[in-house]
Amino acid sequence: QSNVAVYGVLDSGIAYTTNTNAAGAGVTKIPTLTGSLPSRLGFRGTEDLGDGLQAIFTLETGLGVDTGNMGQNRLFGRQASVGLKGSYGQIALGRQVNMTFLATQKADVMGPNLFSISSIDLYLPNARSDNSIFYFGRFRNVSVGATYSLGRDSSAAGGPAGTNCAGEVAGNAKACRQVTGLLAYETEPYGVSASYDIMYGNAGAAGGLTSADNSDKRVTLNGYVKLGEARLGAGVIERSTRAATGLQQSDLYYCGISYPLQPLLTLDAQLARKDQKGSDADATLLVARLTYHLSKRTATYASLGRMQNSGASAIALDAGGTVGAGKTQNGLSLGLRHFF
Amino acid sequence: QSNVAVYGVLDSGIAYTTNTNAAGAGVTKIPTLTGSLPSRLGFRGTEDLGDGLQAIFTLETGLGVDTGNMGQNRLFGRQASVGLKGSYGQIALGRQVNMTFLATQKADVMGPNLFSISSIDLYLPNARSDNSIFYFGRFRNVSVGATYSLGRDSSAAGGPAGTNCAGEVAGNAKACRQVTGLLAYETEPYGVSASYDIMYGNAGAAGGLTSADNSDKRVTLNGYVKLGEARLGAGVIERSTRAATGLQQSDLYYCGISYPLQPLLTLDAQLARKDQKGSDADATLLVARLTYHLSKRTATYASLGRMQNSGASAIALDAGGTVGAGKTQNGLSLGLRHFF
Amino acid sequence: QSNVAVYGVLDSGIAYTTNTNAAGAGVTKIPTLTGSLPSRLGFRGTEDLGDGLQAIFTLETGLGVDTGNMGQNRLFGRQASVGLKGSYGQIALGRQVNMTFLATQKADVMGPNLFSISSIDLYLPNARSDNSIFYFGRFRNVSVGATYSLGRDSSAAGGPAGTNCAGEVAGNAKACRQVTGLLAYETEPYGVSASYDIMYGNAGAAGGLTSADNSDKRVTLNGYVKLGEARLGAGVIERSTRAATGLQQSDLYYCGISYPLQPLLTLDAQLARKDQKGSDADATLLVARLTYHLSKRTATYASLGRMQNSGASAIALDAGGTVGAGKTQNGLSLGLRHFF
Repeated sequence: QSNVAVYGVLDSGIAYTTNTNAAGAGVTKIPTLTGSLPSRLGFRGTEDLGDGLQAIFTLETGLGVDTGNMGQNRLFGRQASVGLKGSYGQIALGRQVNMTFLATQKADVMGPNLFSISSIDLYLPNARSDNSIFYFGRFRNVSVGATYSLGRDSSAAGGPAGTNCAGEVAGNAKACRQVTGLLAYETEPYGVSASYDIMYGNAGAAGGLTSADNSDKRVTLNGYVKLGEARLGAGVIERSTRAATGLQQSDLYYCGISYPLQPLLTLDAQLARKDQKGSDADATLLVARLTYHLSKRTATYASLGRMQNSGASAIALDAGGTVGAGKTQNGLSLGLRHFF
Repeated sequence: QSNVAVYGVLDSGIAYTTNTNAAGAGVTKIPTLTGSLPSRLGFRGTEDLGDGLQAIFTLETGLGVDTGNMGQNRLFGRQASVGLKGSYGQIALGRQVNMTFLATQKADVMGPNLFSISSIDLYLPNARSDNSIFYFGRFRNVSVGATYSLGRDSSAAGGPAGTNCAGEVAGNAKACRQVTGLLAYETEPYGVSASYDIMYGNAGAAGGLTSADNSDKRVTLNGYVKLGEARLGAGVIERSTRAATGLQQSDLYYCGISYPLQPLLTLDAQLARKDQKGSDADATLLVARLTYHLSKRTATYASLGRMQNSGASAIALDAGGTVGAGKTQNGLSLGLRHFF
Repeated sequence: QSNVAVYGVLDSGIAYTTNTNAAGAGVTKIPTLTGSLPSRLGFRGTEDLGDGLQAIFTLETGLGVDTGNMGQNRLFGRQASVGLKGSYGQIALGRQVNMTFLATQKADVMGPNLFSISSIDLYLPNARSDNSIFYFGRFRNVSVGATYSLGRDSSAAGGPAGTNCAGEVAGNAKACRQVTGLLAYETEPYGVSASYDIMYGNAGAAGGLTSADNSDKRVTLNGYVKLGEARLGAGVIERSTRAATGLQQSDLYYCGISYPLQPLLTLDAQLARKDQKGSDADATLLVARLTYHLSKRTATYASLGRMQNSGASAIALDAGGTVGAGKTQNGLSLGLRHFF
């Protein structure tokens, strides 16, 4: 019906990565989590309520084209929300992306590519909160937003979207709560953005956050600038995890460029480095991607990537992949992306 | 395409309830099961076959906006059916609502609100049968309907839509069968309705119905009348459970009023009482709701409720919630509802 | 929106089969897997890219109308694929049907009916491969196609679509791989088709394929011819399973006729025989179906079937059903089918 738009992205390809285990074996696969973008099917709509006010809703399913499985361990794992939108901004309730998700949208030129900073911190493309109240407003060039979650992740299935922290615990105003905030100044030629994200734990929660006193905090700062046809972006994500086993801190730096070689051919390249504090478990990522646009909705792409792990670091080049500890992993990904 | 209508309801809010456990702690949450109505996404269509005959189908997913999870432990938990509709009525096959679901539609002014008689008997908003043959016909002011299920609930996930009674057992014509029937006389100013619902058990089934000789029976009787702009509704649901552990009986009485305070502002109020026979485990519910209509499709609402539990009764005010045994629970719910 | 077509089939009915267990008990049920066709809901689209090239995608959910459950143990169990289509044919990536699925489309007049050769080899209507690259081209009357899967089945839920062989194993170029191919010559009055399908195992995989050296192979050969208004089809499926427990071989022969008794009334009949090599565990199937077309999109049907099991054979007449070993099972199925 006219009230609902059915939309989505299907993005799949073939990837090869080296050194996926200690023995150094490579693997060829059709990736599950993403190609150049994660695949999805969504239903959304808006209704004009008068006076510039709109009712809005989104139901968005994540999916793996490789197997037909749903993503994020639930039916509408990418978004399930209903809200209102007006000149003051947008408020919504439900499961939805939080400010960490939105913060890097413009400065991270690779986005949630199979080889990208998402491989280093898989929370980034999964920065969503269950049971959340969402606000986002844009006032001329200034954007401000926040989410507050009463229980950040209802799934116990494991992985970044299954951290077993359902929250809404009687008599505990911290268990599994999550707060995120964003402030940005954005114009066409340049922009800067900062975000804050803190999530609390509870008994049984993943990532060592087994008490409401444990927390995982991310602060991001980034910016972009246009130089001619090129767009340059750079940023840092500072993470501080107060887990049951102690404090862990890391910085993730990234910078990149997006450049149209020809009208239909875009080159994106990114360099990133994760610095694990008080440890040599660091990692360096280098990735380049060529995208050929068959139309506005359809493109093919090829990515070349390299992840250097030092010490005990075992960060795979590809999101959801594996790598032998301390090994350097190279990879190639070819794919097809279609918006509908 | 023109053959399929995509439709749904998204309804979410924030609720606070007191005394959610023996220690008396309150909890704030974004409810899972319902706000003022349970959230859903559906696909339905009709095809004219000539001579007033139509083919009809519905696929309807229940979902929790709070987490994006599917409801009723299955993909199309609210309905999956295909059938024919004509002047003689409608027949359909599949998983579908039964007559207990339909019986209270007009007399229960609160419907499946977060605070409502659904909290007292969570089967009421989940009165569906797997593997069922459905008939419903309306002849002038008289409605008559029935369902027959060969196996009433295929899910073993627990809860009212996961009672582990798949049925269709070879050589057992009673195991997990369910029969429901309805008879109603309805006009614009007034109406009465009665329904009957009996479900049988089998090994492993929930609710103590661990044999095909066990059964759970509900008889409903209700009516409504319009007085000026007000609609008054009242009814009783008599339940009799022949479980492995013996016979349990209860009556659930309810009465309510729905009144438009202003063209866009509706007040609903309801009083209900559950009388557990041969026990003082009774409960009394009082709930009032204000609904402000932003449009025909969108509304905001506020509900105030109170559930008084006596003796060992531990019926939560909110559907799917918890309460300390014997405690009185108060609650407030604010929400937004959008039809699409 | 105009980019996406929502489509599907809902097909449900009531079936009775005799001798469902050793005691000879019959059962009445609403089938789960199929009626005359398996039920489904899909989303698909095409985009013209110029020069005869198209982007194509399909997301197709299998479902059981009886319970609302998803089929194939995953959200888009029937298909999740994205690809390109041109004059050279079609290539696609994802989870999709393979050549064994396509090979019998014209010669098997009963298709995936509840009583059909699918009951004898439940892989036939489930001949899909996860993680696959698909090619299919038609050049005048000649069709040629192939799939290559890097990991054929990610689900461990059991059954023909849950064989626990996710594949994509580092350093193992055989584990859970699957290759299928098809060659066909098809005209309006007659046609022939041949296909080849080999799947490999890995630790934990179902069907005794617990090593990458184990394999399950099917070769099909079939043809059809039109005689007046009748269409006759016949074929053979040769299977050879190199499991951990040794080699098993079988031939499945089938022949059938489809004949329009009247413009709206079609009779289909099929005879099939499975010959298990080196054993008398054979089975013979006889099924007849009358289909009355209420419209192009809607039909009712009745199937009568008989499965004779000899020796230790325990092949149920109905797909997904049970039968006492060595018993003959008769069955009747009545149903309604609706395309949308």
